[in-house]
Formats: sequence, C-alpha cells, structure tokens
Amino acid sequence: MHIGITGTGSYIPTITTLNTDFINHTFLNTDGSPIPNSNEVIIEKFKKITGIAERRYAKKELNTSDIAYLAAERAIEDAKIDKETIDYIIVAHNFGDVTYGQTQADTLPSLATRVKHLLQIKNPKCIAYDILFGCPGWIQGMIQAYAFIKAGLANKCLVIGAETLSRVIDPYDRDSMIYSDGAGATIVENTENTGDILAHNAATFAHNEANYLFFGESYNKEENNNTRYIKMHGRKIYEFAVTHVPQAMKDCLDKSGVDINDVKKIFIHQANEKMDEAIVQRFYKLYNKPMPEDIMPMNIYKLGNSSVATVPTLFDLVKRGKLENHAVKKGDVVIFASVGAGMNINAIVYRY
Amino acid sequence: MHIGITGTGSYIPTITTLNTDFINHTFLNTDGSPIPNSNEVIIEKFKKITGIAERRYAKKELNTSDIAYLAAERAIEDAKIDKETIDYIIVAHNFGDVTYGQTQADTLPSLATRVKHLLQIKNPKCIAYDILFGCPGWIQGMIQAYAFIKAGLANKCLVIGAETLSRVIDPYDRDSMIYSDGAGATIVENTENTGDILAHNAATFAHNEANYLFFGESYNKEENNNTRYIKMHGRKIYEFAVTHVPQAMKDCLDKSGVDINDVKKIFIHQANEKMDEAIVQRFYKLYNKPMPEDIMPMNIYKLGNSSVATVPTLFDLVKRGKLENHAVKKGDVVIFASVGAGMNINAIVYRY
Repeated sequence: MHIGITGTGSYIPTITTLNTDFINHTFLNTDGSPIPNSNEVIIEKFKKITGIAERRYAKKELNTSDIAYLAAERAIEDAKIDKETIDYIIVAHNFGDVTYGQTQADTLPSLATRVKHLLQIKNPKCIAYDILFGCPGWIQGMIQAYAFIKAGLANKCLVIGAETLSRVIDPYDRDSMIYSDGAGATIVENTENTGDILAHNAATFAHNEANYLFFGESYNKEENNNTRYIKMHGRKIYEFAVTHVPQAMKDCLDKSGVDINDVKKIFIHQANEKMDEAIVQRFYKLYNKPMPEDIMPMNIYKLGNSSVATVPTLFDLVKRGKLENHAVKKGDVVIFASVGAGMNINAIVYRY
Repeated sequence: MHIGITGTGSYIPTITTLNTDFINHTFLNTDGSPIPNSNEVIIEKFKKITGIAERRYAKKELNTSDIAYLAAERAIEDAKIDKETIDYIIVAHNFGDVTYGQTQADTLPSLATRVKHLLQIKNPKCIAYDILFGCPGWIQGMIQAYAFIKAGLANKCLVIGAETLSRVIDPYDRDSMIYSDGAGATIVENTENTGDILAHNAATFAHNEANYLFFGESYNKEENNNTRYIKMHGRKIYEFAVTHVPQAMKDCLDKSGVDINDVKKIFIHQANEKMDEAIVQRFYKLYNKPMPEDIMPMNIYKLGNSSVATVPTLFDLVKRGKLENHAVKKGDVVIFASVGAGMNINAIVYRY
C-alpha cells in the first residue's frame, strides 16, 4: 500500500503588505513602554531575523474557510479526482473564521463543513472535521489521513491548512509583522502510482512550553477592551525549536530508513528565516554533515508566516515550478517539518 | 485486537439553573418581535418538548479546558493507567475556552494542550489535539482513537468531550434554555481484557444542512453589538435527525453483525427528549420492533444539552451505577449515537 499525495493546491491572498506599511505603527514593549528605536531600525532588525519583506492578507470579504475552499478546489483539480469520492475533509486552523473587523471567532459549523458546502459535495459519507494543532496542523492532518487510510477507514482524503492571522494581530506588537494569511491543500490517496509517506513523527511539549504561543492582551495598556491577540515568547520558541525539531526530524528520517544523502528537499514551516536555517543546519549536524545548498525552499520573504498554510503552499509552489532554483521529481525523498503552538512538532518523510 | 474503553470520567458543573430561573427573561422571535405567550407558557412548552427541567453551568473561574481536565483525571484514575503512557489526548469541543463574561474564544494553545498541561504529563510523545465536529465530536474522537490504534500509531488514547455552552447563549432566545456545560472522558486502549468497538459509522451533511446550527446575532435587534451566539433551526434539525440518524444507527449495527435483540442500551446525544425518543423509536421500526423499555438512559431532565459532553457523561453515570434503572455489565452490546452541527451524525456499536 502506498499512501501518496496525488494533488496539491494553494491560495495566496491578493493584498500585499510591505514592511514599509508598518512605518507609522506605534510599537510597544510587552509592558506597554515605548520601544526606544525608530521604526526604521525596528523594521530593519525584523527583516534581518525573520527574512520577511512582504506578507499577504486576504481581502475583507474572504474568511479562512473561503480561502481553504479556494486551495482545496485547486488540489482536487490537480488530483483529477471526482470530488464525490473524497472520504475525509480535514481542515487545520487555529482561530476559526474571523470576519474582518470583528474579534469573535466563528467555528459553528466547523470550517471543514463550510469547505464541503462550498465545494458542493453531496456525499454524506465524506466526513468533514477541523483539527487544532498549532502551526503543525496541516502535517498532523496528513498523519491523520495516513492513519485513516492505513486502518481502512478511508481511501481518499482532502487535507487543508488555512489561516487569516492578519485578523488576530495586535498593531502595537512588532511580532505582528510576522503573520500573514494563506491556504494550502493536498489530496492524499491509497494509490499504487504516486508517492508514499515513508515515516511520520509528532510530539506535544505541554509541561513548561504550553504557553509559548498564547492569546493575550494588547501591549497598549490603554486599550482596555479585553480583546486578545496572538502573542509569542519569541526567544523561548527559538530555543525550543532549535533544540527539539532537528532531533524529531532525525528520528523520523531514521524510522524511514532513508539515507541522509538521499534527502532532496526540506519543506519547513515558514516561521522565521534565521530559526528555520538554524533548525536545518542542526539537523545536518546530527549526521555530521554541512547543510546542502538549495535543500530548503523558502518563500517567507514574500509570503510571511501563514501558520498551518506555509508547508502545503510551499510544496505546491515547488511542485508547480513556481519557486526559482527549486524542483521535485518522481522518486525524490523530501521532508515536511513544522513547529508551533502547543508546543507541537511534527515531520513526515515522503517519497515523491 | 480489541479496542476497548478501560476508563471513564465526567465532570458535572455545580451551578444548577432551573427553568424557573428564566421566568423574568424577555424571549423574542427570530425577527425581534415579542412572543405573545407568557414565560410560564413558554417554559411549560419547552419542558414538554425537550424534557429539560434543570441544566448545569460551570463556575465563573472554570473554562472548558478546566472541566475537560477534571473529567480526564477521573477517567485516568478509573482506567488505572500511568498517565505518561497515553499516546493521544483528543479533545472535542466547538467554541474553545470562553472566559466568563467575554465573547472571544481562546484556542491558543489548543484545549488538548491545556488539558495535558493540567494533567502534568511530561512525555512529549503524548500528542494533544482538538477536534471540531459539532455535538458528535466525542464519538468522532473515539473513532479517530480507534483508527490510530488500528493503524499502529497508538496504544492508549484519552478522548474528551467538553463544552461551556452557557457562555455562548443569547438570553432573548428560548432555545438558550436547552444548553448547558459539562465534560466527559474515556480511556481507549488496545487490550485483550475489556470491551471492543465492533463497528462505527459517520457522516457529514453539508449540502443543504450546513447552517442548521450556526453562530448568529441576538434576537434583540437593539443589541447591535456584533456579538454572536449559538443559534439553531430547531424544526429543520428535528426533521433531519429523525430522518437520517435511525438509518445511520442501523447501518452501524448491521456492520457489526450484532442482532437487534442483543442491543442492551442506546446512549444517545442528549439533545431533546422528544427528538431522541423519535430517533430510537424509528430505529427499532427499521427492524419492525417496538422500542424496548429502559433501552435509552436519559439525563437531559437534570443536565440539559452539554453538546459533546452528553454521551460520555451519560455512559460514565450508568457505568458507575448512578442512573436509576440503568446498568451495563460485561459483554453487553451498547450503541453510542449522536447528531449535531455540521450536520454531523455518528454511531459506535460497542461490546462492554
């Protein structure tokens, strides 16, 4: 039995927000005090660490479930399948549908139901549910699809990662420049013809790490309106990620039996350029090897961090030849890896 | 391989709200017009249809994840397992943690992460995620745990259903009297000694039915504050449920190979007494049989509808001998069944 990806799709929102668009923001420290540096300096430093020059925001009229649907439609088309034959629709997100200008999330019905409705799938045996697993949600959805197929519960799954982080950000927080909107989707099938999930690995660190990413109040203490926003302890996350993700990736690769020299690409969650580079460098160091050139496709520069959407979007772009200097061809072994709120970590070793 | 429930636990919130506590409410029609009947008549009619006389609300300081943890702790104790050996924590809910008096949901980190944190489980290989699947979320979590065990991804799973619906209700809506808070949990294991999931069935009807339960504005049009509440098209849900749930239960039972006469108890989602009775009557009618007496334990009278929590709570109470005239003994075949937002339906045939 091969459990492979037979189709991919992504939706890249159309509103481009540049770093210079933040130039008139009032950035504050966590305690509400002003940051002594000028915004030029703050933005320059931000760019240097994260690699982000631009990010995408969804248009006002589009919610997370809408862009999830747009990515899903492309994945279904790419897989050339009859949508009525899909057994599961798994939508990974973290905040539900947040209508533009509102703070309340809408998860009734689930985003998976909304996607199924928009796709106009009639078959009631197509089971639609949402998974919340932080940024690693799409990879975890892939692992769940794999389990359902392996256990005989499904033959064909649609796995989507979609998020509109632009609607849960605190304008007074520098970290808000990281976040963006996006959606990526894949069709996973029990197939003889295409790729194969060779190994997978996942973990949740919730003892000391549970609140490294959290929903917190604005840094502007005068905005006493109870509204909460995505917040992170950046330094702690960085240290956590570079400590635990390389080993989780190595455990997964070793489980797959694939030699480190046969890994062709690593599709890592686009969290932060410096952090991603440190993770992959340390991963190779565990094999006493230098990090190969062009091993790690990156698009954080232009797309920012769209949480659950980064990995499937990146894979879709490379697969379609839309990322310079990067390609995958049949038989290539690639790694998908992610880290995020939970704190959750996961990885899949995949033969394309 | 047997995949059985080795432990159960529930948390019944401590605040009892009686029907008479709604006597001074202003109930409105969907269009905002006043309901001509007196509240006495409204409440009497409500009681007659739903069976609900009382419901439970969680204390202000407890969130959904807190009561999920309290139920989980009891299930772990009941199963007599080392909590560090749990492979998955699956938390079914629909609205996240809604702090008392607030409208914004908090799902960062996931409720499963919060439960794992509160349980003080250190093992990072215990994977914690949330599932959103309407009221049938706990049964769906059970099906997912079954799939993970069957596919070799897990040996031991903690599956929780928890909700605080009291925090998402519109005081001007009669339907608000239905909803309550609660949490139920189970340990599911790969075991030779205890029960066995004999068959399962699930469906999502999202073509015409996607918005039968939805997040909508207050019926009081003067409260123009954008806050949204749980809302339902009650009549449509009733017709949908009595049409589709009996057949889904029959398909599941037929798949299991168990004779209808060997079914000892049906644990059905405590949605509405009249609807639940109609479902089970129609289920037996599909076998040309009258509904047996005492086949359907009910506690909606005292506990209301706590969404994902009703089925595991009901099962826990019967298992512990806390529901008059109801008991289960080793070898008994029982059915778990649910219907709710999505619209989702599911069922499990289980040998105790």
